[in-house]
Amino acid sequence: MAGTEWATRVHAVRWVGDAATGHLELLDQRALPARQIYLTLRTADATAQAIRDMVVRGAPAIGLTAAYGVVLAAQELGREVTAGGLEPAFSVLRAARPTAVNLMWALDRMRVAVHHATAGLAPLPALLAAAHAIHEQDLESNIAMGAAGAACIPAGARVLTICNTGSLATAGYGTALGVVRSAFAAGRLEMVYACETRPYLQGARLTMWELMEDGIPCTLITDGMVGHLLQQGMVDVVIAGADRIAANGDTANKIGTYGLAVLAHYHHVPFYIAAPLATIDPQTPSGDGIPIEQRSADEVVMVQGTAIAPAGAMAWHPAFDVTPAALIAGLVTEAGVLRPPYRTSIAQALGVAG
Amino acid sequence: MAGTEWATRVHAVRWVGDAATGHLELLDQRALPARQIYLTLRTADATAQAIRDMVVRGAPAIGLTAAYGVVLAAQELGREVTAGGLEPAFSVLRAARPTAVNLMWALDRMRVAVHHATAGLAPLPALLAAAHAIHEQDLESNIAMGAAGAACIPAGARVLTICNTGSLATAGYGTALGVVRSAFAAGRLEMVYACETRPYLQGARLTMWELMEDGIPCTLITDGMVGHLLQQGMVDVVIAGADRIAANGDTANKIGTYGLAVLAHYHHVPFYIAAPLATIDPQTPSGDGIPIEQRSADEVVMVQGTAIAPAGAMAWHPAFDVTPAALIAGLVTEAGVLRPPYRTSIAQALGVAG
Repeated sequence: MAGTEWATRVHAVRWVGDAATGHLELLDQRALPARQIYLTLRTADATAQAIRDMVVRGAPAIGLTAAYGVVLAAQELGREVTAGGLEPAFSVLRAARPTAVNLMWALDRMRVAVHHATAGLAPLPALLAAAHAIHEQDLESNIAMGAAGAACIPAGARVLTICNTGSLATAGYGTALGVVRSAFAAGRLEMVYACETRPYLQGARLTMWELMEDGIPCTLITDGMVGHLLQQGMVDVVIAGADRIAANGDTANKIGTYGLAVLAHYHHVPFYIAAPLATIDPQTPSGDGIPIEQRSADEVVMVQGTAIAPAGAMAWHPAFDVTPAALIAGLVTEAGVLRPPYRTSIAQALGVAG
Repeated sequence: MAGTEWATRVHAVRWVGDAATGHLELLDQRALPARQIYLTLRTADATAQAIRDMVVRGAPAIGLTAAYGVVLAAQELGREVTAGGLEPAFSVLRAARPTAVNLMWALDRMRVAVHHATAGLAPLPALLAAAHAIHEQDLESNIAMGAAGAACIPAGARVLTICNTGSLATAGYGTALGVVRSAFAAGRLEMVYACETRPYLQGARLTMWELMEDGIPCTLITDGMVGHLLQQGMVDVVIAGADRIAANGDTANKIGTYGLAVLAHYHHVPFYIAAPLATIDPQTPSGDGIPIEQRSADEVVMVQGTAIAPAGAMAWHPAFDVTPAALIAGLVTEAGVLRPPYRTSIAQALGVAG
């Protein structure tokens, strides 16, 4: 598959070696774009810490990282791989970040795999195969999402996006950025505007890097420029990723996304979310039920290690916000573009009762 | 006056010495809050360069800096102070920054002063007195604005602001931040939320510093958090400064202000502008006629000297945006709070035909 080939260019998450003695490697995204460093992870605890510390980020990438974390936990148990023995690892991995549901989804899949694997003769290879399957499925979802979403991008489009939703945030290719890639491949993309996305600057550091590597025309803006950009008529479509989508379509994503959606609405510009079905949480009826992770104020008062505010300054740091379904023109998934009313279209896509 | 006393704590702009041999000192705001350094200016060209380089910023502060720049130009001419001889200085100062109209207003006042001064026996003292008068008048305007604006702040208010509009942006006290100071003094302020205001971080570096120095409760947010903060019902009033107000009330201010106004409107939170009458440009009928300064992309791809995007990244850097009058609940001026329809209330306040 062309997409699979493409994705080999950059791996945010990779398993090296066999099931018994191999290890997990994570591209340290905190150091990008200045340096490309892979960290070696050999325990579930270290994997959870890397997720907390944002070595790896992006809902799909966190999910598959946690899946490999379960394999590491099984290695740590040695010959005695049991479901009970793996429970502490499941707990620590599940608690690493509270908002993105892909983490819970991947761990639920691994729990099923553990059930089967511990009944067999070779639990470690079975668990690694399950993690690899999650990895592969995410990549395939991205490619399908790109194809479906590109149809929402008009010819000559100027697209605005936030955070990083590309190969670094997924198994490869990307969600919202996968749609951008497909639109570019189809010759329909004039410009991508990337919000720098403070405090972590995923837009400036990661999205600009990915787009420039691919030769896709891109322009960086500060987060405060969004209103003026839309007011000037310089945007045709806004597209963002998701960390959790409730059963009614309300969507949690990187802090700043909600403001983008309101500003797009005010300027009559369509606002799309692109995410795999694994990002939909049918157990959460609406956005009110999505926990918003509060991170350290230090991450707001510092930029790349430099203090930007007086010592002792108070700061607020919600890592995500929730965009109500009413502001979303469509949810781009591997099962096609879901449209309002989302309670129905989501239930149909997930194959559960509406 | 209490306000005058207060203002002696910090001087963004100060004249040191007498008219014949004195010089201008500017607090280098690029180095705040880490270091407090005063730069010495002895020529009009150096003064214009300091304005361009944002050593001093804030529409009122730029205006009075330019006024002192004219005094420096007169010193450079020595005994031959003539209106014609000062023309090059007027030109270079006027061109230093295109959006803020206070710069043009202050220079127009100095041109009148030049006319009188060159007819007299002591042109330099007369010109310095004229610059000092602009300085004093700005401070008095700020105090009056604070009193008028504080009446718009409800008890227990949580106030959101952008950029820096305090003593560093003016002769002292501030415009929007002057209103905040007056509301705090009246016991009506619960919290100020300060947008960090990328790319220059005036909110993080300058506003947080001023507010913390005064013991006013304040919390820093990134620019992308505005939507979520409003959605959570955590803001009662939004107040911003202005760089130029058109005759119909359309207001140019720091990039990001327009987005703030739209988001406030969407959440039914009143949005105010605070500025002296000198910021109103009756010659500009509407916001369409306000030139928006485009600054270097380097200022977006760098934060405090550190690159945050890949080398060669393209970036967009409009320094201001325009908020339509329809989104503004009131214009807080030294002549009271002007209300819609602004064409009428502005004309009345300026004492010109409506």
